[in-house]
Amino acid sequence: MRALEEKIVKEGKIYEGDILKVDCFLNHRIDVEFLAEMGKEFARLYKDCNVNKILTIEASGIGVACVAALQFDPVVPVVFAKKSKSSNIGDNFYHSTVQSYTHGKTYDVIVSKDYLGENDKVLILDDFLAKGSALEALLDICAQSGATVVGAGSVIEKAYQGGGDLIRAKGVRVESLAKIKSMDTEKGIIFE
Amino acid sequence: MRALEEKIVKEGKIYEGDILKVDCFLNHRIDVEFLAEMGKEFARLYKDCNVNKILTIEASGIGVACVAALQFDPVVPVVFAKKSKSSNIGDNFYHSTVQSYTHGKTYDVIVSKDYLGENDKVLILDDFLAKGSALEALLDICAQSGATVVGAGSVIEKAYQGGGDLIRAKGVRVESLAKIKSMDTEKGIIFE
Repeated sequence: MRALEEKIVKEGKIYEGDILKVDCFLNHRIDVEFLAEMGKEFARLYKDCNVNKILTIEASGIGVACVAALQFDPVVPVVFAKKSKSSNIGDNFYHSTVQSYTHGKTYDVIVSKDYLGENDKVLILDDFLAKGSALEALLDICAQSGATVVGAGSVIEKAYQGGGDLIRAKGVRVESLAKIKSMDTEKGIIFE
Repeated sequence: MRALEEKIVKEGKIYEGDILKVDCFLNHRIDVEFLAEMGKEFARLYKDCNVNKILTIEASGIGVACVAALQFDPVVPVVFAKKSKSSNIGDNFYHSTVQSYTHGKTYDVIVSKDYLGENDKVLILDDFLAKGSALEALLDICAQSGATVVGAGSVIEKAYQGGGDLIRAKGVRVESLAKIKSMDTEKGIIFE
């Protein structure tokens, strides 16, 4: 999505340690009007897939998912996986584990069994896709629930980290609105 | 908002310990179409206030705020306060402290100084308003930034907990789409 690539170049900031900060429009301040444009693109990409639920993960995924859900016809509900601090969650939850490379730790995510099941055709959305650990966890939760995953979408894929292609190799459709081929503080960002 | 009251009665569940679970449409599964109706109501209530930013707090507030922002004309950006685990946040953040009565602890919330300032006319939105601690923290952050708060909105106010009226008494406009006067497992929910 060209407009997104231009926005990343114009408004994003690259820092040492492979960090791309886009908190000016995506994950702290949210440019909701632009989010709606991105949502339309997700809805276009998956329009023939009978999506009836969008699954995401707190916190930054929620805005992306809710605004995208409004662009589907009919509008679909969103379910967001919650980060769980407790291992004692009862038996009414699917759960899986995410490895956060940014923060150097793992955490559990949970989804209530009430809100995901075999009748669901799920699109998984998130803001970032890097090594793919969050997406793997959401796919795992969908598998546990018997839901059909029609595909996944990310706003920004750090393609050079390989997570997206790893998941595509398993046969999952993954669409990213901007795919970064390489990125550093000197040469800037090169998109695929 | 009558449709919301009916939805709470129909889909919500009351548990011992003053717990109202509405995670079937508000804070786990999100009924995005209904969120848009609530967003229209917030936009109507604050339409003459020149709102140019919506401030909320992660995680459940983000969906409410983003979908409401789309109903404003023009669409306004959202900023969400982040829960901070670290006290070492640098000096580019406003921060304040929230007392969570549900979880029996306090936590810090932060907003970057880049995204809130004296030119902002802010509407603060959140899913719940009970004792008002999260709202107090967001008001504190707005005061630090010099932003003008035009008012606050919550989807569900537990009016009997007093937080809303405490803040109204300070001169802040607070609009709640459903105000619960009393609630228990036997008599159910009575709205104001």
